[in-house]
Amino acid sequence: MTLCWVDGVAADSLSVKDRGLAYGDGFFETILVKSGQPLLLQRHLERLALGGKRLGLRLDLPLIERECRSFASQMGQGVMKLIVTRGDGLRGYAPGHDAQPRRILQASPLPAYPQGNAEQGVRLYACQTRLAEQPLLAGLKHLNRLEQVIARGEWQDSDHAEGLMRDTCGRVIEGVFSNLFLIKGGVLLTPDLRRCGVAGVMRAELLALAEQTSIPARELDLQMSDLQKADEVFVCNSVYGIWPVRGVERLNWPVGPLTRKLQSLVRGLLDI
Amino acid sequence: MTLCWVDGVAADSLSVKDRGLAYGDGFFETILVKSGQPLLLQRHLERLALGGKRLGLRLDLPLIERECRSFASQMGQGVMKLIVTRGDGLRGYAPGHDAQPRRILQASPLPAYPQGNAEQGVRLYACQTRLAEQPLLAGLKHLNRLEQVIARGEWQDSDHAEGLMRDTCGRVIEGVFSNLFLIKGGVLLTPDLRRCGVAGVMRAELLALAEQTSIPARELDLQMSDLQKADEVFVCNSVYGIWPVRGVERLNWPVGPLTRKLQSLVRGLLDI
Repeated sequence: MTLCWVDGVAADSLSVKDRGLAYGDGFFETILVKSGQPLLLQRHLERLALGGKRLGLRLDLPLIERECRSFASQMGQGVMKLIVTRGDGLRGYAPGHDAQPRRILQASPLPAYPQGNAEQGVRLYACQTRLAEQPLLAGLKHLNRLEQVIARGEWQDSDHAEGLMRDTCGRVIEGVFSNLFLIKGGVLLTPDLRRCGVAGVMRAELLALAEQTSIPARELDLQMSDLQKADEVFVCNSVYGIWPVRGVERLNWPVGPLTRKLQSLVRGLLDI
Repeated sequence: MTLCWVDGVAADSLSVKDRGLAYGDGFFETILVKSGQPLLLQRHLERLALGGKRLGLRLDLPLIERECRSFASQMGQGVMKLIVTRGDGLRGYAPGHDAQPRRILQASPLPAYPQGNAEQGVRLYACQTRLAEQPLLAGLKHLNRLEQVIARGEWQDSDHAEGLMRDTCGRVIEGVFSNLFLIKGGVLLTPDLRRCGVAGVMRAELLALAEQTSIPARELDLQMSDLQKADEVFVCNSVYGIWPVRGVERLNWPVGPLTRKLQSLVRGLLDI
């Protein structure tokens, strides 16, 4: 059995009454583990805290942090998936006020992405699946992920390492499992995620790094025409770091100097 | 232990790897059971089949039907919840082509709704939570239900038996756990659900009953101003049947003759 804990105890099953199963009533975090350490853990916990606040789920964050650290030390290396749900529920949507949130930790090996993804860059598949606008859930990494499941089912070929997702109005939002950045005239641009999308931990880290290193950065609404005019494009997440984007459909970009600079900064964070 | 089956076997837990938990990748049906019979089962299975087709989930419907009938006969009376998920998954959104869908059946007692709900009618709480427009998922009873969880958390008082949900453009769509009908000039009107909402089994049954009894009926986009002009309003689902709606916010309606006629037809279906 691969390493797996439910509420702090070794287990690989959970109650059929869990509201995470019934309604997707909960959140998850996918955390890189190296040398027994959960990387960027504070940012993962901050996003979880924001979700808990937004959905009225009282989370014991110190307990979650302790469990994550202890689990990671047993894993050594790999990807740790943390799921937090509202726990068991009765029939009906009403969230119980005495709900006991459930923690699930699962270990998996480091994903075997081709080395070329980070070096030569990737091509994105232009997904037809559009993200619905739901400001109440935007930014959160909640368990309602059917849009991503449908979008990821759109392509099977290995020519596309990621998909590009737009919202129902055509705005460019993110990758299926990544956030997206453009560089134009030395400015770092990333889609505003107040209507939809997942506000990734690596995205937050990059915006903070940009501020520390005086790279101008902005969150704003972006269209396909902005992509067309971009000097550099890349996708990022907290597991693989940064992949330069070489192209999507008929658009192509070189792998540029600012992408390379950010990649080297991020390697310092992830290659411990 | 209450009656509960996982994949046809008595069990009350499931694998933490289930994609229903990870992504809400599946569907559910809430089925009324009386005298050991699952009521309106064909319509529940039809909706499930539509969902499976839309999300590329190969369902063994004859097996599901057999399990539902067998489970219902053991239950005798109550509410049977069927959850069907894409089964266990690896890390990542990509839906596996060899996925083995999982069936979960849970029994619960008949809900204790006040008798007055069906007799004198109910008031609806006007939810602030708006339904996002996602045509790819509209109509399906999938497991991504955070909008309903948030909406149902908006009111606690017992003056409101249900909530009224609108979409992000303000169109009137449904209740939190019901569908909505208006009657205007003898015509049965119900919101078009091609952008969002759950196409309920009782809603389908009522549209069929209307056709059989020559009551004109239409599915269309409805605004709050249409509610204001309605002669009668009611909500429905496959467990409680029909509740006349007496009011929402400052709007009020009488319990009218067509609502009473439909209630008596539906009682013939549910009170076996």
